[in-house]
Amino acid sequence: METVPTIPAERLHRQLTTVFTTWGMRADHAETAATIMVDTDLTGIDSHGVGMLPHYQRLLREGRLDPRATPAIIRDNGPAVLIDGNKAIGHVPAHLATTTAIEKARQHGIGIAAVTNSNHYGAAGWYARMAAEQGMIAISLTNASHLLVPVHGTQPALGTNPIAFSAPTRDTTRPVLLDMATTTVAYGKVSIARRAGKPLPPGWALNAEGGPETNSAIAAEERRLAPLGGTREQGAHKGYGLALMVEILCATLTGAGSAQLRTGHFFLVLNPTAFRDRQDFQADLDDLIARLRANPPADPTTPVIIPGDPEHDTTIERRQHGIPILPALVEEVRAVCTECGAPFLLG
Amino acid sequence: METVPTIPAERLHRQLTTVFTTWGMRADHAETAATIMVDTDLTGIDSHGVGMLPHYQRLLREGRLDPRATPAIIRDNGPAVLIDGNKAIGHVPAHLATTTAIEKARQHGIGIAAVTNSNHYGAAGWYARMAAEQGMIAISLTNASHLLVPVHGTQPALGTNPIAFSAPTRDTTRPVLLDMATTTVAYGKVSIARRAGKPLPPGWALNAEGGPETNSAIAAEERRLAPLGGTREQGAHKGYGLALMVEILCATLTGAGSAQLRTGHFFLVLNPTAFRDRQDFQADLDDLIARLRANPPADPTTPVIIPGDPEHDTTIERRQHGIPILPALVEEVRAVCTECGAPFLLG
Repeated sequence: METVPTIPAERLHRQLTTVFTTWGMRADHAETAATIMVDTDLTGIDSHGVGMLPHYQRLLREGRLDPRATPAIIRDNGPAVLIDGNKAIGHVPAHLATTTAIEKARQHGIGIAAVTNSNHYGAAGWYARMAAEQGMIAISLTNASHLLVPVHGTQPALGTNPIAFSAPTRDTTRPVLLDMATTTVAYGKVSIARRAGKPLPPGWALNAEGGPETNSAIAAEERRLAPLGGTREQGAHKGYGLALMVEILCATLTGAGSAQLRTGHFFLVLNPTAFRDRQDFQADLDDLIARLRANPPADPTTPVIIPGDPEHDTTIERRQHGIPILPALVEEVRAVCTECGAPFLLG
Repeated sequence: METVPTIPAERLHRQLTTVFTTWGMRADHAETAATIMVDTDLTGIDSHGVGMLPHYQRLLREGRLDPRATPAIIRDNGPAVLIDGNKAIGHVPAHLATTTAIEKARQHGIGIAAVTNSNHYGAAGWYARMAAEQGMIAISLTNASHLLVPVHGTQPALGTNPIAFSAPTRDTTRPVLLDMATTTVAYGKVSIARRAGKPLPPGWALNAEGGPETNSAIAAEERRLAPLGGTREQGAHKGYGLALMVEILCATLTGAGSAQLRTGHFFLVLNPTAFRDRQDFQADLDDLIARLRANPPADPTTPVIIPGDPEHDTTIERRQHGIPILPALVEEVRAVCTECGAPFLLG
C-alpha cells in the first residue's frame, strides 16, 4: 500500500488563509474558515476540509459565494436570532451563529441561531464541539445539495442533511460528539468505493428505478443516496424523516429555501446550568459513558465506543504526523492557486 | 383473516378515565392521560395507547407510579423550565411541559421544558403534534427501558429513545409529524412477528453474541434491539448516536438518570414568527411537501408520503369505524379493572 504524503496542519492553514485573502476575504474571516477546515482534516473527515476548496472556488466563480460578505444578525428576539449569511462562505456565518447562540445560552439558558443565505459550512460537528468545549450542549444542522431519494421515490430531493450533537464531559477537550449524515452513508464513501473499484453494499445508493445500485462507478455518477436505514423494511422512512426535519429547520424556517445550492443552518445551544448543576451533569454524563464503554463487546478487540472517539484519536495522530493529502488533491489546490493568483505553499 | 372487534373512541376514553380515577388520579389528570392514549390508538400506534394500561398498573403496584402526584415546575429560567413529574403517569407532566414550552415560545420565541422523575408518556409524537396544531414547531424526546444494544456491544444499554418532530402547514390539522424509535424497529414489531410466527429480517434484533437474531420468539424473549441502521456497515452507529443524544437530553440533563425505569423527557418548541412571517413559513413548507409528493415513485401505486400521513389516514378511518382492540387486550383491561375495582366498560 502506497503511503499518502502528509502536510503539517500549520502549512495547510497558511495555504488556506492565503487563498482566502487573495479572494478578497477579510483576514479574520479567512482565519475562521481556514481554522475550521484544518480542524476538520485533523479529525479525519477528509471530505469536509481542504477537499472542499475546489468546490468553494467554483461557487466563487459562479457568483454564488461572495468573499467580501459580512454576515449580520437581522433578527434578535431574546434567545432566538436570525443571521443573514449574505452569501459568505458558510463557515463565517456559522461561526458567528454558534458564538451568538453560546452567548444567548449564557444569558437565557438557551440560544438558537438560524442562518439564511449561506453556503456549505464544512463539518456540522465542528460547531457543536466548539460549544461543548465551552461547557454547553449543542446541536448543529445544515441542509445540503440534493442527494437523498425519499422512500418510494426515485429522484434526489433532499440533502444528506447532517445532524451534529455535542455534550460536555468533565474533560472539556473530549465531549461526546455525534456528526452524522441522515443518508446511510455520505457521498464521500461512494467516491472512495469508486476509486477503489469496489461494489457498494445494498442500502447505500439507489438506481433510477428506486432499487439498490451496487455499482460504485454508476452510483458516484448518478448521485442517488438511500436515507439512513437503506430500505423501508430497515427503517429508511426514519432517515428520510430526519432529513426532512433538518430541511425544515435549516431551509424553511430560515427562508433560505430548498432549491439546489440554497443553504441554511440551525444551531441550538443549551446551558446545562439552566436545568441542573453543571458538575452534576458532567459527572452523570461521565458515568453514562463509562457504563457504555463497559458493555461486553462481541469481539474483545473491538470495544463499544462513544461518538467522537475516532475523531479524537485521529486528531492526536495527525497533529503529530501531519495530515495525509492525496497527490490529486495537492494538484487541485495548485489549480485553485493558479486560478486566483495565490502563492502555492504545498509544493 | 379474522376481523378484530372495534370499540368506539369515546367508550375507550370512558374506560380509561374510570380506571385512572379509581386509582386516585385527579379528574383533570385522568382526562389528560386518557385523551392522549385514545388519540394514540386512533392514529394506529397500538403499542403506545390502551395497550400500555397493564404496564402502568404494574408500575402502580410496584410503587413506581404515584396516581396522586401533581407535577410541578421546579426551575423557571425564562425560556427554559425543569418540571418534576413526582412519579406521575408520564402523560401528565409531559402535557404540562408541552403546554409550558408553548407558552414560553409565545413569549420568547423558544421554549424548552425538561422533565425529571417521570414515567412512560405514551407516543412521543402526540406532544409534538399538539404544539404544531398551535402553529409551533416542536421536538419531543424521551428515554425508555433498555433495549438498544450499542454498536460492537452485546447487552441492551439504552432505550428505543424516540425522536418526534412536528411542524405546522397551512392546514393546521395536518402537520408534518415524524415519530420514530432510534432502533431499526420498536419492540412492538418484534412482538407482532412473534405472534404471527414469522422470522425477523436481520438488522432488527441481536443475539447474545451481537449477531443478528432472526427467530422472533427468541428475540421477543431476549429483548436486544439493533440501533437504526441495523449493522455498522449500514450505519447502526448513527442510530446508537441518536439514542445517546436522546438519553443525554432526557436522562442526564434532567437528572432523571439512566437506570432501568428512570424516565425523563425533553420538549423544544419554536415559534416560527421568531424567525420569519408565519404565513411565509407555512406556505414554503406546503411547497416543500408538494415537491416531495411529486417525486416520481418507483411503483406508481405507492407514491412518496410525508411523515404523519399514515397516522392521519388511520385517524379518519378509526374515528368512523372504531378502534380495533384484540380480544386478548380486552381481557387484560378486564383484569386491570378487577384488580383496582373499576367498572369494566368494554364488554
